[in-house]
Amino acid sequence: EIVAAIESYFGKGAPLAGLRALVTSGPTYEAIDPVRFIGNRSSGKQGHAIATALARAGAAVTLVCGPVALPDPAGVKVVRIESAREMLAACESALPADIAVFAAAVADWRVAQEAPQKIKKPAEGGAAPTLSFAENPDILASIAGLKQGRPALVIGFAAETEKVAEHAAAKRARKGCDWILANDVSAGTGTFGGDANTIHLVTENGTEDWPRLTKQQVAERLAARIGDHFGKKTT
Amino acid sequence: EIVAAIESYFGKGAPLAGLRALVTSGPTYEAIDPVRFIGNRSSGKQGHAIATALARAGAAVTLVCGPVALPDPAGVKVVRIESAREMLAACESALPADIAVFAAAVADWRVAQEAPQKIKKPAEGGAAPTLSFAENPDILASIAGLKQGRPALVIGFAAETEKVAEHAAAKRARKGCDWILANDVSAGTGTFGGDANTIHLVTENGTEDWPRLTKQQVAERLAARIGDHFGKKTT
Repeated sequence: EIVAAIESYFGKGAPLAGLRALVTSGPTYEAIDPVRFIGNRSSGKQGHAIATALARAGAAVTLVCGPVALPDPAGVKVVRIESAREMLAACESALPADIAVFAAAVADWRVAQEAPQKIKKPAEGGAAPTLSFAENPDILASIAGLKQGRPALVIGFAAETEKVAEHAAAKRARKGCDWILANDVSAGTGTFGGDANTIHLVTENGTEDWPRLTKQQVAERLAARIGDHFGKKTT
Repeated sequence: EIVAAIESYFGKGAPLAGLRALVTSGPTYEAIDPVRFIGNRSSGKQGHAIATALARAGAAVTLVCGPVALPDPAGVKVVRIESAREMLAACESALPADIAVFAAAVADWRVAQEAPQKIKKPAEGGAAPTLSFAENPDILASIAGLKQGRPALVIGFAAETEKVAEHAAAKRARKGCDWILANDVSAGTGTFGGDANTIHLVTENGTEDWPRLTKQQVAERLAARIGDHFGKKTT
């Protein structure tokens, strides 16, 4: 930490000094009632690693994260939320930013009518309940589509199980973001909850296939790639 | 640990020596698809504390637990599961036992049809999905109702928000268990995820109101109470 702070102070190894970054990480939880919720299996490892790498590269980082079992990264402002709607509000509050990386696994749907009291088990032989869902806000598309205050570089993730690069390019166009980090999460790849990731970076110039890397290496490579991007733009 | 082991070896402070205990703890997760699940907010703190206290009192303890962020208690055999059906199977495999304490927050329902692939977001304007549920096995009632191999002392929990002792007494009769540890989990009591608990112990002899205690103190008091119970029966 001290070395990092000194490097940052003297501008060495701080290609992102002076830039503000917003990163999301982890799952969202959508409440069914005060006790039950719908969650997903995102560990937050990749998003937290990206927040750490951007901070080490000199950026001022706000990390908006759902319920994870990870410690807060050092030198990062952490905002903890639960639901997708809370995540969107926290992201909006974290603007302005130059860089936004949306690594969280946001629930597409929330329960249409959250119960204010615990839903009781019906009497013997009673009917099991049914849940209806409402669509959640699309955080990536919302921030990428801002007319005012859009971050200069908006980066999304795509978790795909087939035709990874093709689906990711379509997602990039549909969401209006600049880059997509696409990975294959099909069963057996061990990406969910695991420590490694095989990334395809989709930009306006096409697709870069990265080798299989640890999530920390993915984060460091992304931070370097972002540094190159802003370096090119300012020269 | 060494002191505990020596005490256990010499029979001092080991009122439950020679007895086998089964304890459940934590939430269950019920899969919606490979990525999404329905969970609940049980931290596992109370169940894990009970497993620890029973082991320290000399019992041979098997702890069947759902996804929790807690370390495995020392000196306890831990079996990790996710769903209610897995929990029931693990409990049955852990028998025979003299004592069974069901502290887990088991989902009443599972999703009727778990999807083998990730459920895709529908196209723009498409209908949100609906989930139907099937009732899960009742683990407490199943074990309490065993004709053969029923543990001598079966203890359940009741999380209530009103008429706590009355509802717990009704639950004791309905489930066929011996004791119910009832607590008030209404909003503001801080029981869920918190470190304290106010317990009403419902037995065949009526209700004992315990003072507000930490979850560790509840566990120790319960272990002592179980020791008294078996002591009385054997003299």
